[in-house]
Order: sequence, then structure tokens, then C-alpha cells
Amino acid sequence: MNHLQGEDLLCKQLGYEFKEQRLLRRALTHRSYSAEHNERLEFLGDSVLGCVVAKYLHDSFPQLSEGELSRLRSNLVREQTLVTLAQQLDLGSHLRLGEGELKSGGFRRHSILADGLEALFGAVFIDRGFEAAQKVVLNICMPYLEKVDVQNLGKDAKTLLQEHLQSKHLSLPCYSVIATHGEAHAQSFQVECVISSLKITARGEGSSRRNAEQQAAQAACHELSLQT
Amino acid sequence: MNHLQGEDLLCKQLGYEFKEQRLLRRALTHRSYSAEHNERLEFLGDSVLGCVVAKYLHDSFPQLSEGELSRLRSNLVREQTLVTLAQQLDLGSHLRLGEGELKSGGFRRHSILADGLEALFGAVFIDRGFEAAQKVVLNICMPYLEKVDVQNLGKDAKTLLQEHLQSKHLSLPCYSVIATHGEAHAQSFQVECVISSLKITARGEGSSRRNAEQQAAQAACHELSLQT
Repeated sequence: MNHLQGEDLLCKQLGYEFKEQRLLRRALTHRSYSAEHNERLEFLGDSVLGCVVAKYLHDSFPQLSEGELSRLRSNLVREQTLVTLAQQLDLGSHLRLGEGELKSGGFRRHSILADGLEALFGAVFIDRGFEAAQKVVLNICMPYLEKVDVQNLGKDAKTLLQEHLQSKHLSLPCYSVIATHGEAHAQSFQVECVISSLKITARGEGSSRRNAEQQAAQAACHELSLQT
Repeated sequence: MNHLQGEDLLCKQLGYEFKEQRLLRRALTHRSYSAEHNERLEFLGDSVLGCVVAKYLHDSFPQLSEGELSRLRSNLVREQTLVTLAQQLDLGSHLRLGEGELKSGGFRRHSILADGLEALFGAVFIDRGFEAAQKVVLNICMPYLEKVDVQNLGKDAKTLLQEHLQSKHLSLPCYSVIATHGEAHAQSFQVECVISSLKITARGEGSSRRNAEQQAAQAACHELSLQT
């Protein structure tokens, strides 16, 4: 594949045309490839992404409190989300990596993909300013932003898991303590959450039984891709 | 003092005129005063402040790495800085607080001042967009941004403290362990750092002597208003 063609395609997907092509090039350059790498752009992109998502959530959900907005944002802006978005853009094929990283499959490494996407946002911010970066971020992130589940905000993992299973008419999870460690005043509990109908067994640990159960439920939610 | 006059003065200090006066009013309203309070604006303001400072540092220090930029930013954007800036604007006298907070001197409470300032940045962001908020943030924060000390970046607290004292031809600090707690495998050390020439005694705690000394040095730097 011709490199320029690839970058043109990427820009089309971003819905953006760079004034300064060298910024795009830099955003796609990993530190293993050249000293002119994308880490400073990533620093900038991370903050512009946070700001755009904050503005979007603030404007879209006038009924939510500050705490709820913060929680929504950290649910959205996490590495796994960025990795999925980067994969959809096939960002790995555009990144310029050093030979070591190439051989070890670095273009599939999650942190490299997430950082590359943030660097792209940072590059647009420098190239044409905040509004342009906002547009690109929203273009790319909209599928996630539209799925934001305000209904389940603030529900704890056990409740969320139970409601999900009930809605599917499945048997409820079964929690049991499988180990305790430490002295009475500083005990740690290990809890197992079993959902037999789905063949899921998840574990959690905490300083109380209650806490460990929430952790186990959280792990089970994660396996079911439920947003907690 | 007439309230409107007060707000006019505040806007003059910010170098900003609100299109929508109700945004300014909301930014100045603590949750103890009304349900129309400033917490959501603070959420937004926090992220716009972070983004503006990131952009400023990125553009001003092309030689710094991502890690150094991050560190500089978190040194700058911390509660104590915001409180000092809020005090310079006499923000406490403009805030609308409930009676309970007023009686207990809430207008002097650090978190209330810092949150109020962030809420102002958020209000400007909504009122006229990012560029306007950027201008106001830079107006207000410039005294701090200009003082950014790249020289001392990455230096640990003990080194910083020692260099500072040497430059003033003062006696060096004296560190001593004043207490240890816990079993051998999980010890905690308490260290005292005494600078006799300045009559400063600062304490630190850590899981090693070295660590506790750094903490104590950090506390001493703080007393001397040295940026660490």
C-alpha cells in the first residue's frame, strides 16, 4: 500500500484535512522510529480529548451532577475505548514504528494505538485550533458518546449485574467467600461470583465481604461488557 | 459594596465581559446557596483549564518531554495555586454562599475558592467558547506560568532544598529519624528535617528512611514556597 494513500484515507475517516502535513506525520511516529515522535502531541491530545468530552457531556446531560459527569467521562475516556476506536481507523497500519516494535507486533500493542489516536487529536488542535479538534474528536467518538448509558449511572456493580441477568431471565449470580487472609483487624476477603447459566466465574478481593462481592460483580460485568 | 459593582470589577480583572450574565451569577453560586449552583461549571472549568495550560506548556517548551510537561502541569494546576489566584481576585467576596457557610467563614475555605475560580473558567467557555476561555485563563494564570521553573524540573525535593539553601549561603538541613512503626517487613519511618538558620522544622513519613526524608524535604520546600 502506498503510504500517502493510506494517510489520505485516514484523514478522510477523521473528516479532516491537515494544513501542515508534518503534524500528521509526527502524530503517526512512535518514539521507536524517530526522535521526532508523537509523545508531546499525545500529551496535548489527551487534554483536548478530556475537554471536548467534558463539554459534550455537560451540554447533553443538564440533569447530571458534577460527580456523575466525572464518572461518565472516565468511563468513556479510557484506554480500551481509545484502542477500539484506533482499531476501527486501522491506525496500526499507519503508525511508523522502529524495527524492534514492528517485529514484536507493536502496531497491535494497546498503549501504542491509544497514544497514537490521542496524538492525532493533539496534532489537529495545533494545526487548526480547538474547534477543529472538537469536530474530529466528536466525529470519531460519537458511536461511544451516543451509547452513554445514563440509566445505569451510579448503580453499583452487584445491582447492575442482577438487573442485567433478570432482564435476560437468567439465574442470579451466586457469591461465596473462597478465602480470607490476615488478622481480624486487617482481614482481606476473596469472593467468587458464579453465574452458572453463562458459565462465568469471576473473582474479587476486598477488605470486607461486601467490598469483595462488589469487586467480583465488577469483574463479571466486565466479562459481559456491561458499563459500570 | 453594591453587588453588581462587585461583579463588574471582577469581570474587569478577568478581562472579560459576559454575554450571558446568568452564567457569571451561576459560577459565583455555591451549592449551599441555591440549587442553581456552580458545580457543573466547575467540572467544565477544570478540563478547560487543564487543556489551556497543556497548550501553553506545549508551545512554550519545545524541548520538554511528555513526562516533564505532565509534571509541570500538575505542579501548576493544583488547589493551592488556584486558591492564591482566587484570593488575588478577592473571589470570596463575590461568592454567594448559604448562611451556614457564611457564618463558618466558608468564603475563606480553600476548596470553595478554587472551585469558584474553575467555575468561572467553565462559564466563559460556555459563554463565548474555547478561545475566550483560553484568554481569560492565560490572563489570570500568567504570573504563575511565567514563573515556571524548568531548571528545577525533575530534581528531587532534597536536592532542591539543598541547592536553595546553598544559594542563600545558609546552613544545610539536618535529617533525623524520630520514630519507626511496624514490623521489620512493613516498617514506617518518621523523619524530621530541621533548618536551624530559618527556624524551620518539617516532618515526613515513608516506608523507607530515604522516602521519609524526601517527604520531609518536600514539606520544608513547601514552607519556603519552592516549586517541587
